[in-house]
Amino acid sequence: MGGTVFLAIADAKRPAQDALHNGLAQLTALTREDLQAVNAIILERMQSEVPLIPQLAGHVIAAGGKRLRPMLTLAASRLCGYQGRRHLALAACVEFIHTATLLHDDVVDDSDLRRGLATANTLWGNKPSVLVGDFLFSRAFQLMVKDGSLEVLRLLSDASAVIAEGEVAQLLTANDTETTVEDYLRVISDKTAALFEAACRIGAVVGERPQEEQDALGRYGRTFGIAFQLVDDVLDYSARQIELGKSIGDDFREGKITLPVVLAFERGDAEERAFWRRCVEQLEQRDEDLNQALGLMDKHRTLEDSLSRAREYGKTAMGALSDFPDTPLRRAMIDLVDFCIERAY
Amino acid sequence: MGGTVFLAIADAKRPAQDALHNGLAQLTALTREDLQAVNAIILERMQSEVPLIPQLAGHVIAAGGKRLRPMLTLAASRLCGYQGRRHLALAACVEFIHTATLLHDDVVDDSDLRRGLATANTLWGNKPSVLVGDFLFSRAFQLMVKDGSLEVLRLLSDASAVIAEGEVAQLLTANDTETTVEDYLRVISDKTAALFEAACRIGAVVGERPQEEQDALGRYGRTFGIAFQLVDDVLDYSARQIELGKSIGDDFREGKITLPVVLAFERGDAEERAFWRRCVEQLEQRDEDLNQALGLMDKHRTLEDSLSRAREYGKTAMGALSDFPDTPLRRAMIDLVDFCIERAY
Repeated sequence: MGGTVFLAIADAKRPAQDALHNGLAQLTALTREDLQAVNAIILERMQSEVPLIPQLAGHVIAAGGKRLRPMLTLAASRLCGYQGRRHLALAACVEFIHTATLLHDDVVDDSDLRRGLATANTLWGNKPSVLVGDFLFSRAFQLMVKDGSLEVLRLLSDASAVIAEGEVAQLLTANDTETTVEDYLRVISDKTAALFEAACRIGAVVGERPQEEQDALGRYGRTFGIAFQLVDDVLDYSARQIELGKSIGDDFREGKITLPVVLAFERGDAEERAFWRRCVEQLEQRDEDLNQALGLMDKHRTLEDSLSRAREYGKTAMGALSDFPDTPLRRAMIDLVDFCIERAY
Repeated sequence: MGGTVFLAIADAKRPAQDALHNGLAQLTALTREDLQAVNAIILERMQSEVPLIPQLAGHVIAAGGKRLRPMLTLAASRLCGYQGRRHLALAACVEFIHTATLLHDDVVDDSDLRRGLATANTLWGNKPSVLVGDFLFSRAFQLMVKDGSLEVLRLLSDASAVIAEGEVAQLLTANDTETTVEDYLRVISDKTAALFEAACRIGAVVGERPQEEQDALGRYGRTFGIAFQLVDDVLDYSARQIELGKSIGDDFREGKITLPVVLAFERGDAEERAFWRRCVEQLEQRDEDLNQALGLMDKHRTLEDSLSRAREYGKTAMGALSDFPDTPLRRAMIDLVDFCIERAY
C-alpha cells in the first residue's frame, strides 16, 4: 500500500477532539472499578490446563481494545440502579462471545492485522483460532449458567445465533454488487448490533426493571451498534484511518460490500458500474483502482451519506435513553455514541 | 493410495455380524418414533432466512450417520422411566453440538471425506463451515433455554468447553511422538467421550432420577465414548475399514498420534523410533511407509492391544447399567457397546 494516494473526507470540519473523547473516557472512568473486576474474571475464566488456550485467548483479549461491549453491560446495569455483582460475570460473557466471533472472523477473512497486532490466526493458524473461539463461547455459557438467569441465557443465545446468521449473510453479499442498502443494513444489524443490543438488555434483567426499560436499552444498543459498524465501514476508506494507524482499502481489496460501495454502485453510470464489478466482484484490481474508487465515492458523496446514516442511528440511540434519569452515567452513554461517530471525522 | 497393501488384523476370528448388528439396529428400533421426532426438530430448527445455512447444515446432518449421540439421550431418558417429550429437543441439541464440532473439525483437519461424502468444507469452503457450526451451536443453546433446565444447560456447556479443550490438546499431541498413553486417553476422553457422557446424563435429568443414576449413566456414556474412539482410531489402520468403504492411513498421513502409534513408538527400538519420528513428526513419508507402519503395529500387537483397551472400557460401560431394570432397552444399550467395538473385527 506504500504509495497509495487517498482522498480525505470532510477533514476541515472536524469537531474538537477533546469534548468527543470524553464520551469513551468518561464512561471508562465511571465504570473503572467494575471494568477491573470484569478483566479479572476474564483472566481467570480463560484459563485451561491446555496451555495454548490461555496463550491464544490472552493474545486476543489483551490486544483488548476498548472493552466497549462489556462496558455497555456495566453501564446499562448501573443505569438501571443495579447495586449487585452479577453484571460483572455477565459482562465477561459478552466479551467472551465477542472474542470468539473475532477469532472465527479472522479465520473467515484471512485478515492479517486486527487492532494493529498480528491476529491469532496469523500467529497460531486457523485450527487453534477456531477451537479457542469455541472454548471461549462455551465458557460464556458456563458463566451464564452459573449466574442462573434463563433470561440472560436467552438473550445471549439468541444474539449468538443472529450473529452467525449475519456473518453467513455477509459472505453471501461479499463480491455481489447487487447488494441493496437493506441487505447491507440487515447484515450489520445482525453481525454487529445484535450483541450491542443484548449487552445493554442484560442491564435491565439484572436490575429487574420493567420490559419497557429493557426495550429502551435494547434500542439504544441496537442503533448504536448499527451506527458503530457504519462508521467502521466508512473508516476503511477514510483518511482518519491513517491517523489512527490503520491501513485503508482492506474491504475494497477483499471485495467486501459496505454502504459506501452500495451507494456508489447505485449512483454510478454504466462505466462506473463496470468498474465496481471488475474490482469487487471479479477482484481484478490494478494499482490505481483504490484511488479511482475513492474518487467515485467522493463524486457521489457516499462516505458523507453513510456517515449521515450513522448520525441518524446515533440520534435514535441517544433518544432511547431519554426516559432514564439524567445522571453523569446517562450523559456518558450518550456522549459515547457521539464519540464513536465523530471518530470518523 | 491406489496400490497400498495393508495388513489385516484378527480377521479370522470375526464374530457373527448378525448378532452384533442387532445392538445398533435394536436400539434404533426401540427409539424409532422418538428418533423421527428428533429428526423433525433438527430439520425445523436448522432453518434460517439465510439459505446457505440450511443447505450446508442439511448436507452434514443428512449425511447423518447413525444419530448415535441423540439416540443415547433418548435411550437414557426412557431407561429412567421418562414419559414426556422434553428429551426430544434435548437430543436435537446433542446432535447440533456434535454437528458443530464436525464442521469445525473439518476446517481443522483439512479432511476431504467424512462418512464417504464430500465435507461441507470441501464444498463450501472454510468460512461457511465455521459460521454454520457457530449457528448450530447457538441453536442448541436456544433449544436448551426453551427447555428451561439449568442442569441440562450446565451439562452441555461444560461438555462443550471440555470438547474444545480436547480438540486443542489433540492439536498439541499431533506430530509429537512423545505423547503418552495417558495424554492420548485424556484427549479422546475430552474430545469424544464428554458429549457421550452428557448425552446420557440428560436422561436422568429429564427423568428426575437421583444423582447416583445420573452418575451411572454418565459412566456408561463416558466409557462407551472412549471405547468408541479407540475403535475408530484402530479402524484407521484396519482391513475392516476397507470393507466399510473407507480408506486407511489417514491419521498416519496427517501425523495424528493415536494409541496404535503411541504403543508402537514406546515398544520400538531406536531404528523404529526414528522411523516414526520421520513419518509422523517430520511428515516425510514415502510410498512404502504405511505398510512399514502396519508391519510394526503387527509386530508389537498395538492394534490388538488398543482393541483390548476398548473392550475394557466397554465392559465398564455395560457394568454401569447393572442397577437399571433388565429391559429390552437396557439390553439394547449394552449390545450397542458390543456392536461398536466388534465392528473393528
